[in-house]
Amino acid sequence: MRIDILSLFPEMFKGPLTESILGKATEKGLLDVNVTDFREYTTDKQRHVDDAPYGGGAGMLLQAQPIFDAFDAINKETDPEMPKGRVILLDPAGKRFDQRLANDLAQEEHLTFICGHYEGYDERIRNLVTDEVSLGDFVLTGGELAAMVMIDATVRFIPGVLGNHDSASGDSFSNGLLEYPQYTRPADFRGMKVPDVLLSGNHQLIRQWRSKESLRRTLHRRPDLLDKIKLTAEQRHLLSDIKIEEDDTEPE
Amino acid sequence: MRIDILSLFPEMFKGPLTESILGKATEKGLLDVNVTDFREYTTDKQRHVDDAPYGGGAGMLLQAQPIFDAFDAINKETDPEMPKGRVILLDPAGKRFDQRLANDLAQEEHLTFICGHYEGYDERIRNLVTDEVSLGDFVLTGGELAAMVMIDATVRFIPGVLGNHDSASGDSFSNGLLEYPQYTRPADFRGMKVPDVLLSGNHQLIRQWRSKESLRRTLHRRPDLLDKIKLTAEQRHLLSDIKIEEDDTEPE
Repeated sequence: MRIDILSLFPEMFKGPLTESILGKATEKGLLDVNVTDFREYTTDKQRHVDDAPYGGGAGMLLQAQPIFDAFDAINKETDPEMPKGRVILLDPAGKRFDQRLANDLAQEEHLTFICGHYEGYDERIRNLVTDEVSLGDFVLTGGELAAMVMIDATVRFIPGVLGNHDSASGDSFSNGLLEYPQYTRPADFRGMKVPDVLLSGNHQLIRQWRSKESLRRTLHRRPDLLDKIKLTAEQRHLLSDIKIEEDDTEPE
Repeated sequence: MRIDILSLFPEMFKGPLTESILGKATEKGLLDVNVTDFREYTTDKQRHVDDAPYGGGAGMLLQAQPIFDAFDAINKETDPEMPKGRVILLDPAGKRFDQRLANDLAQEEHLTFICGHYEGYDERIRNLVTDEVSLGDFVLTGGELAAMVMIDATVRFIPGVLGNHDSASGDSFSNGLLEYPQYTRPADFRGMKVPDVLLSGNHQLIRQWRSKESLRRTLHRRPDLLDKIKLTAEQRHLLSDIKIEEDDTEPE
């Protein structure tokens, strides 16, 4: 997959793109990320890329020209055989990024991320864009960190990026429930003990405990998720056990 | 504000922490960010920080010991006068990060972020934690990028971090609506024109157009936000105008 990023702060990407999963995917030849500083494309003599809003108001807006020209230059440079791909604008008014969208983006051969900066941008930039995406209801200084988050979540779905023993489909949300509690050595750490069942060696009991605790955590923290999936008969029984147990005791 | 980050990938933070708003806040002395590689604190001879889960299953889990010991070392080193602050674990089962939580965290003098990695961690690590926070329903390789996002959104609320002419309270979401479209020069870019009203110089008309387009965008993209705020009489009129107009035409 080729990923292009249009950003005024290319230095921000250095650590994140070379470390961890993105660095490994690049080494394996599965990912080719290019960061373009669109200030290089401004036609302004002072190399400005922003200007005051028409109609007045505080703050400066990114102009359309440097971004359109940077975008054209990238498209000229990429393989004409490569499908056009999707162009993503990070915007708080966009659709919410989630695991489904990550999987969806992972099917593309070429993604372009346009990173605005916090004072806003010229509305006409949206004409370049196929997807306006938001990370959530909060405000960031620029789109750079949001782009990195989306790229990380997306790249994990590309076959070969994760090792054999794990895969994106084994993660949280893959079965629609939150994960059960997990423990590793030592069995007693500063007086905090691992639940006995996990030390029992009884695989049937362990499986059932995990299923139940996964349901319990989902019930307490994200009951909305339970409405979205079809529970098995066993899961329905476990869930009703949990509710009966907790009627007499304090919730988690 | 002091921010401590516990991470196995300290190199990831280099670009993001020195560029943009975080770099500026640090230069101004408003922010002091320390990244601790908790591998330095493992008591394992091979310097491992993870081990297999009790009860079986794929993947490795972060052990409690290196994180607890790194945490203790940080607390010994920090000013004993400094309030304990909040300890944030990035976890998909946590509460959703948003602008309100960012503002809330910005009131603290000390924040600690614990960045897990994607195969999971020992449940007992949660005992150190005051806040389990999620960026959204998607899976990241590690908590590093999520921590950077939260830090960026939070630091913007610290007085003095943003310049005088802008402020975190002037952003999207501050009035509960999405932003209206904005335009800057030129008035005609590749045939795409700025709406006439914005060039009119009539401030009353411009204000009303902006209010209406802000409502229109919110209505189309995030109608849920309209239920959360109390509209003024003018806003209610504009909204009913929009609905009447659009009954006869296509939506945006």
